[in-house]
Amino acid sequence: MPKLVDHDQRREELVRAVWEVISRDGIEGATVRKVAEEAGVSVGGLRHYFDSQRGLLLFAAQAIARNVGARVLAHVRRDGLAGPERARLMLEEFLPLDAWRRVELDVWLACLVRSRVDPSMAELRETSWVGERHVCRLAVAYCRDARPPEDIRAPLGDARLERWAARLHVYVDGLTLQAGMFPEQLPAEEVRRGLRRELELVVAG
Amino acid sequence: MPKLVDHDQRREELVRAVWEVISRDGIEGATVRKVAEEAGVSVGGLRHYFDSQRGLLLFAAQAIARNVGARVLAHVRRDGLAGPERARLMLEEFLPLDAWRRVELDVWLACLVRSRVDPSMAELRETSWVGERHVCRLAVAYCRDARPPEDIRAPLGDARLERWAARLHVYVDGLTLQAGMFPEQLPAEEVRRGLRRELELVVAG
Repeated sequence: MPKLVDHDQRREELVRAVWEVISRDGIEGATVRKVAEEAGVSVGGLRHYFDSQRGLLLFAAQAIARNVGARVLAHVRRDGLAGPERARLMLEEFLPLDAWRRVELDVWLACLVRSRVDPSMAELRETSWVGERHVCRLAVAYCRDARPPEDIRAPLGDARLERWAARLHVYVDGLTLQAGMFPEQLPAEEVRRGLRRELELVVAG
Repeated sequence: MPKLVDHDQRREELVRAVWEVISRDGIEGATVRKVAEEAGVSVGGLRHYFDSQRGLLLFAAQAIARNVGARVLAHVRRDGLAGPERARLMLEEFLPLDAWRRVELDVWLACLVRSRVDPSMAELRETSWVGERHVCRLAVAYCRDARPPEDIRAPLGDARLERWAARLHVYVDGLTLQAGMFPEQLPAEEVRRGLRRELELVVAG
């Protein structure tokens, strides 16, 4: 299926170009024209992927959902990790701890804010909520040596653990927001320390 | 000082008009012209307060900082409240639990996102961080019957309590973000319950 491979590869190249433009010009300065220039393609050649600033944001947000999902899954599948360590690595994938994930957060927040007035972003918002809550449930299950939920929407069997998952979800979102918007107040080491302490609380119950 | 009174009253009327326009048209649709129409003044008459969309946002953000500060202070001064109850009332002032505070959050997030590329918003960002951290320190001190910090920038005397204040700050920001962006997942009652549980954790230490 050579066509399919080309298609995936082109998509990857475009994601990289979008990231490049957003890092340099901010979300508001990221236009279809600039992405086309960065990627070395015509504006018309982008039409299959997006053809407006809104479409560009949606394209970027979908790429983030895919990338975060894949990174989290890699930690789920790794051998030989202690439960709390696995939980920590999974949750760190949401935090803006490097330049790439910082762009992810900028795009993500912009989409969230816009989704309040743009119904076309509502589905993505719902998917991201469900996905992040699932990862938090997995993290709590790993920390407490409990049975992980089988379905992405299923709560944890134990109501107390389910409450911890909801708390962890709130905490991770707060940490993400603070790390992204107040980097001078919360350097990466402080962010990592906060998450570690939080998981110690989950382990202690 | 009749002039001063007029000035304050005009500012209040404008804040109300800005809120009205943002609730109706969203942040991106809020323009100087629309606010002038809503307030029944000329565009020129607004120039003293703001003369661009950026100035409008900054004006709105300053109003939020003033309003939240005044509401929190009212709880600090109320007689006869138990410590955790006072803490809860103070922190609820940050949460989008009604239509007015929901607009506050929309404006606030928009300013935060924009402050990443607009240095004129950096001071407000810094002030808001310091203010919210101070309120979290007060809340922890009230919950644990400890001595509140005397200065807005001073940490709590006990390093363990200071860590709780940092945690509470992260939690409140996460709860604010989730309540604002995912109201269908997190109705107001759930938000209040989350905050109450969090403060129980602080009390238990």
